[in-house]
Amino acid sequence: MNKSKAYLEENKERFLEELIDLLKLPSISADPSYKDDVIATAHMVKKRLAEAGCTHTEICETPGYPVVYGERIIDENLPTVLVYGHYDVQPADPIELWDSPAFEPVIKKTDKHPEGAIFARGACDDKGQMYMHVKALEYMVENDDLPCNVKFMIEGEEEVGSENLGWFIQRNQEKLKNDVILISDTGMIAKDVPSITTGLRGLSYVEVEVTGPNRDLHSGLYGGAVANPINILSKMIASLHDENNKITIPGFYDKVEELSQVERAKMAEAPFDVEQYKESIGLHDIYGEKGYTTNERNSIRPTLDVNGIWGGYIGEGAKTVIPSKAYAKISMRLVPHQDWKEITELFQKHFESIAPDGVYVKVKPHHGGQGYVTPIDGIEYKAASEAYKEVFGKEPIPQRSGGSIPIVAMFEKELKSKTILMGFGLDSDAIHSPNEHFGIWNYLKGIETIPFFYKHFARLKQK
Amino acid sequence: MNKSKAYLEENKERFLEELIDLLKLPSISADPSYKDDVIATAHMVKKRLAEAGCTHTEICETPGYPVVYGERIIDENLPTVLVYGHYDVQPADPIELWDSPAFEPVIKKTDKHPEGAIFARGACDDKGQMYMHVKALEYMVENDDLPCNVKFMIEGEEEVGSENLGWFIQRNQEKLKNDVILISDTGMIAKDVPSITTGLRGLSYVEVEVTGPNRDLHSGLYGGAVANPINILSKMIASLHDENNKITIPGFYDKVEELSQVERAKMAEAPFDVEQYKESIGLHDIYGEKGYTTNERNSIRPTLDVNGIWGGYIGEGAKTVIPSKAYAKISMRLVPHQDWKEITELFQKHFESIAPDGVYVKVKPHHGGQGYVTPIDGIEYKAASEAYKEVFGKEPIPQRSGGSIPIVAMFEKELKSKTILMGFGLDSDAIHSPNEHFGIWNYLKGIETIPFFYKHFARLKQK
Repeated sequence: MNKSKAYLEENKERFLEELIDLLKLPSISADPSYKDDVIATAHMVKKRLAEAGCTHTEICETPGYPVVYGERIIDENLPTVLVYGHYDVQPADPIELWDSPAFEPVIKKTDKHPEGAIFARGACDDKGQMYMHVKALEYMVENDDLPCNVKFMIEGEEEVGSENLGWFIQRNQEKLKNDVILISDTGMIAKDVPSITTGLRGLSYVEVEVTGPNRDLHSGLYGGAVANPINILSKMIASLHDENNKITIPGFYDKVEELSQVERAKMAEAPFDVEQYKESIGLHDIYGEKGYTTNERNSIRPTLDVNGIWGGYIGEGAKTVIPSKAYAKISMRLVPHQDWKEITELFQKHFESIAPDGVYVKVKPHHGGQGYVTPIDGIEYKAASEAYKEVFGKEPIPQRSGGSIPIVAMFEKELKSKTILMGFGLDSDAIHSPNEHFGIWNYLKGIETIPFFYKHFARLKQK
Repeated sequence: MNKSKAYLEENKERFLEELIDLLKLPSISADPSYKDDVIATAHMVKKRLAEAGCTHTEICETPGYPVVYGERIIDENLPTVLVYGHYDVQPADPIELWDSPAFEPVIKKTDKHPEGAIFARGACDDKGQMYMHVKALEYMVENDDLPCNVKFMIEGEEEVGSENLGWFIQRNQEKLKNDVILISDTGMIAKDVPSITTGLRGLSYVEVEVTGPNRDLHSGLYGGAVANPINILSKMIASLHDENNKITIPGFYDKVEELSQVERAKMAEAPFDVEQYKESIGLHDIYGEKGYTTNERNSIRPTLDVNGIWGGYIGEGAKTVIPSKAYAKISMRLVPHQDWKEITELFQKHFESIAPDGVYVKVKPHHGGQGYVTPIDGIEYKAASEAYKEVFGKEPIPQRSGGSIPIVAMFEKELKSKTILMGFGLDSDAIHSPNEHFGIWNYLKGIETIPFFYKHFARLKQK
């Protein structure tokens, strides 16, 4: 389909400039001080959807940040694709580790991206990948190539657990009616190895607080005689894994599905070089649950990670204090069949039960979501597979991702439709990290591939 | 000695105002951004020493903050008392827990201080207790009551480990020549239970850094497959104590002096109510090394406490990240005979040895000092004991303190003289904590008692 390549060539610069404008807005949903920027981003997305060909767009208020909705209905009798994405981004810290400011996008060449990559928070997760769909729509509209109806639901709270998306969906069942949900918020194995994410991990995110004495104490006068909340918190966290790095919370593994040797063998076929992996993140050794490979540990196995810890004096120099409180943010990645609410309760019960008498412990559940698995015999998977074949010249590999898009399971439950995950980012794009970036090649390849999904999905759906 | 009481009554208001002026300067030695305030405090102390009767005063530069020196030599043949104190203070954080700003002193009544107490950082540790000696000198000079020579050495780096005091003392042996060193930087058991601190713990303060991946990683994509530096740091810290809360560093206890049952029985005679203790710091249970009482745990036993810990995302909301680094500030309180440099090395060796393969560990020694024990049969102890008897009408109780004044052991080594610790603060004065305060009764009682020490020390020394 040469006209698509031609259209991309012609408009490439504009496509990049538009994305860069979007990336300049610091839409950090986790930090209330960026509220105005998050709202401004929603309005920019709405405007862009209209310009791209949506005949109706609106800012849909929720108890939290708004959902941007857009649609182009060409024929009630044709199938409808619902595109989901998010316009909010992760916080930028630690900002001192960014080579250029997180919200001043720059294009730089890298080994993996010789054609250049856009460096900015949200470049890949998810503004860049979300915007591929907006530009794919523009292409289809401009070239009379839209074979079905399309709806967009772009939210602003994905990075804080999509707290109000369920609320929104329950109240907009009719408006959101669709035949398939299309999302680009995951990655591909490599530029020459297209892949479709068929599994996502669930998530349970909690915050814990350990209180010892009712005020900070002098570590000389009290040291040794009172429970130090930092030492205790460390002990409690340490006890959450055993010597084989299995999680010790009673009942945690009860519902974990053990993959068959056949399935694990199939997974092992995906190209993976452990030395390259170690080198890419500067480790001299891998680490994890005994009895599983690296790729299994970060996809089909549940995990428990401390995402943040703080307590006592963390300024310059030395302060000899026993703090009153110590805190940690802890998240657990879950696999299909583990229920995040149940796991959160198990964690809370267990964590409170292991607190020694000298301290008080509070566990505050943050948010969570269920895991998900896409059947690889459904038409949405077939349509995506055909699309990749046309553009990449080869079949995509189905892969389980370790990441979580908690709302995918909810979509199926509430909207009764399947989700297809067509990701174009690379693991090396440093999402959630300093110097996040998105390859220009990947960005354009996404815009080129998406219309083929519409074409094949519309065809297969109407059979 | 009525004239001293009369002089105190007459000048009480001025004595308070002068201390309050001193407390308004935020002389935080740990934080470079307060450099000018620390220097300004040194100059104010110099001025006050001259006004109180020092015939020579000077600001002595060091590689760090200056030492303020003052002297009044009345007769080369008379003994000389060297007063040590410090004009720097601990950082004020967590500032949100102060009822009034840390550097805007206010006088408020409390249960323990019905006559009122001055609330401000440094009120007790050590500006208030140091200034008692300046005012005691003023009294003795004004009333022709100074029985011997006096020298003052007031430093500005005590709260950061007196890093340059050794440097200063080695270069000023002659200038600092003395017969006894007098310090008020400790506490007394209760207002009606005068006590002399006869033992101090040593200190080893280190900072540790655990590095996992070379950048922050997405906890979904990498969770379970790489070592999380926070989880690892927690595991390592947890392993530093065994199930009996004994420290597990090999060789740590080798030189610890085990007190005899007789000595322990004598210690146990000091009035102590564990229920009151728990209530005063809001604990529902005590905690510590098996086989020792609370008073033993915080005085004759060595300890290991984490004074600060940080890593990952500690802002509002949630960030699903595996951080590249995690840090902790760790201090060990040591007992006489434990060498702080040796303990620091043992810690470093052990901590590096327990790091798993997935991470890199750095241990940065901060500072430290030796423990100290004052003989209770020396004339300095006898003189102090007599002084308390005259003012309080009862013998003081010798007590071991859990705190550290690392320079005391150095004084004996470098200046060949004994130190006597006459502290007038209460454990409840919240030093190093929010709402630090110092009782007006205690402040004036100190000024009243100190001249009696001079009187009796001069008498006993000349025998």
